[in-house]
Amino acid sequence: MRVLLPDLPEFRALNDSGEVLGADLAFYRSGEVPAGDADGAVLWMVDGETRARLLRTPGLQWALTLTAGIDHVRAALPQGVALYNASRLHDRAVAVHVVAGMLAAERGLGAFRDAQRRGEWTSPPTPAASGLRTLDGLKVVIWGFGSIGRIARDLLTPFGAQVEGVRSGTSGAERTRLLAEADWVVLLLPSTPQTRGLVNAEVLAGFKAGARLSNQGRGDLVVTADLIAALRSGHLGGAVLDVTDPEPLPAGHPLWEAPNLLVTPHVASTTTDLVARGAALTRDFLLDLAQGREPGGRVEEGRAY
Amino acid sequence: MRVLLPDLPEFRALNDSGEVLGADLAFYRSGEVPAGDADGAVLWMVDGETRARLLRTPGLQWALTLTAGIDHVRAALPQGVALYNASRLHDRAVAVHVVAGMLAAERGLGAFRDAQRRGEWTSPPTPAASGLRTLDGLKVVIWGFGSIGRIARDLLTPFGAQVEGVRSGTSGAERTRLLAEADWVVLLLPSTPQTRGLVNAEVLAGFKAGARLSNQGRGDLVVTADLIAALRSGHLGGAVLDVTDPEPLPAGHPLWEAPNLLVTPHVASTTTDLVARGAALTRDFLLDLAQGREPGGRVEEGRAY
Repeated sequence: MRVLLPDLPEFRALNDSGEVLGADLAFYRSGEVPAGDADGAVLWMVDGETRARLLRTPGLQWALTLTAGIDHVRAALPQGVALYNASRLHDRAVAVHVVAGMLAAERGLGAFRDAQRRGEWTSPPTPAASGLRTLDGLKVVIWGFGSIGRIARDLLTPFGAQVEGVRSGTSGAERTRLLAEADWVVLLLPSTPQTRGLVNAEVLAGFKAGARLSNQGRGDLVVTADLIAALRSGHLGGAVLDVTDPEPLPAGHPLWEAPNLLVTPHVASTTTDLVARGAALTRDFLLDLAQGREPGGRVEEGRAY
Repeated sequence: MRVLLPDLPEFRALNDSGEVLGADLAFYRSGEVPAGDADGAVLWMVDGETRARLLRTPGLQWALTLTAGIDHVRAALPQGVALYNASRLHDRAVAVHVVAGMLAAERGLGAFRDAQRRGEWTSPPTPAASGLRTLDGLKVVIWGFGSIGRIARDLLTPFGAQVEGVRSGTSGAERTRLLAEADWVVLLLPSTPQTRGLVNAEVLAGFKAGARLSNQGRGDLVVTADLIAALRSGHLGGAVLDVTDPEPLPAGHPLWEAPNLLVTPHVASTTTDLVARGAALTRDFLLDLAQGREPGGRVEEGRAY
């Protein structure tokens, strides 16, 4: 079995387990793809053109993308190549990032950071005027309730938040009711033809006045102009975005200046040990193949995530 | 029983329960203290001079401060006046604020906020260079391990943090060992003659390189100049302060510009419903007195907290 891997030290180190893995490992970089056939390719941290070249490798039977989303791979995936993703690599960090953003918004950390940069001690005049809350008693609706959502729920519940999930099987009426009652709506949906632009002016108008939105899924789930309008009007009490549309958000884009907004640059799943964890997952994946077990993470034909 | 209360709508509303409480309620503001004797005074949101006048009220038998700390009351407390505090009013919000600050630091929210204000999408070049972590496996030492600390532990444990407490009974050797192993040191101590300046250059030098400090107790627990030096040298990997010395931190103070620092202006226990909760606690306190029960929160003679 010949496998193409990202040329990163943590993946080079897998050669030390080469015999156990029963695999011939070859390494690519953006713009540099090893010649010859390969059975599989592990896709990560590579530009779109090189990714497309890797997917056209002769003899390719499977591709493992070490991302959670697959929308960027799907388009270039040849028929008959089995696709695996790596949600489990990212779930826990994303869930932690969700909670971090919610707590930052409720504790006013964005405005206090701005005051810190100005060198101003900005005590709220009264507690009522502070706008500060804990999560006690807040209703949190997680839209796209899979493994990340379940971890987020388990982290949020001890704070007194009441967490409910919206799944693909949730009825439209039930979803509308949940969204209308939520203090927080957290988007963890994948980007698919059905979900793109889902959160538009009409959906935002159905939120409770002052509700807050967290998007940790994909930027194009939300209509950016409608989000900006809802923040400016104050109907939306705040937003926390790790993903945007467009992404990266260019200098001068009006979203940067929207009120009550926190933006992080698509780092929800980033941790200093992410590459080491990705290499360890790859090792387990190859070991499964070598020993005739079906590895986890198979994306079913026709599924968008 | 005549009781002096802060002149706030939530406390005025206690008059509606006047008969049940069996108390004659009078209301003060900063600079305006009602004449005549009183049995008790509820101290909150008042300047130091007015607080001292309230404590000199003829006939005063007890004072309830709706704060957790008592260092600001103790100095003006006449002998024989029983002192009660209201830790339980603040514990949960402070514990939530502790976790919010730790997550903000680990997820880089300060630097990302600065980038947002500049309109820059600052993706880390590699995960390893991101400096981003979750709390998984981090060792957290809570120095001053009372009711806030226990709540913080219960909130942090589901994130995979390993929480240990340092109490007044913890031996010096054990404390030194715990501080040397900690990824985070959280200060929840009161300000007393024994704790002032406790975290100085020598103590900070005993922390693990790259460890982070959270001070949510009192500003004067930490020697500010030593904290700035430890942040500048990088030995201290970061700090999150809700309290400072001096406080409020004046414009132009060098602490504002220290690296890897997040400052909030003494709001750890602030929530929009804080005054309502304070009035409810006061009502329960007066009801206890009216019905001959000893209310909670008595500060023992000679105790500093």
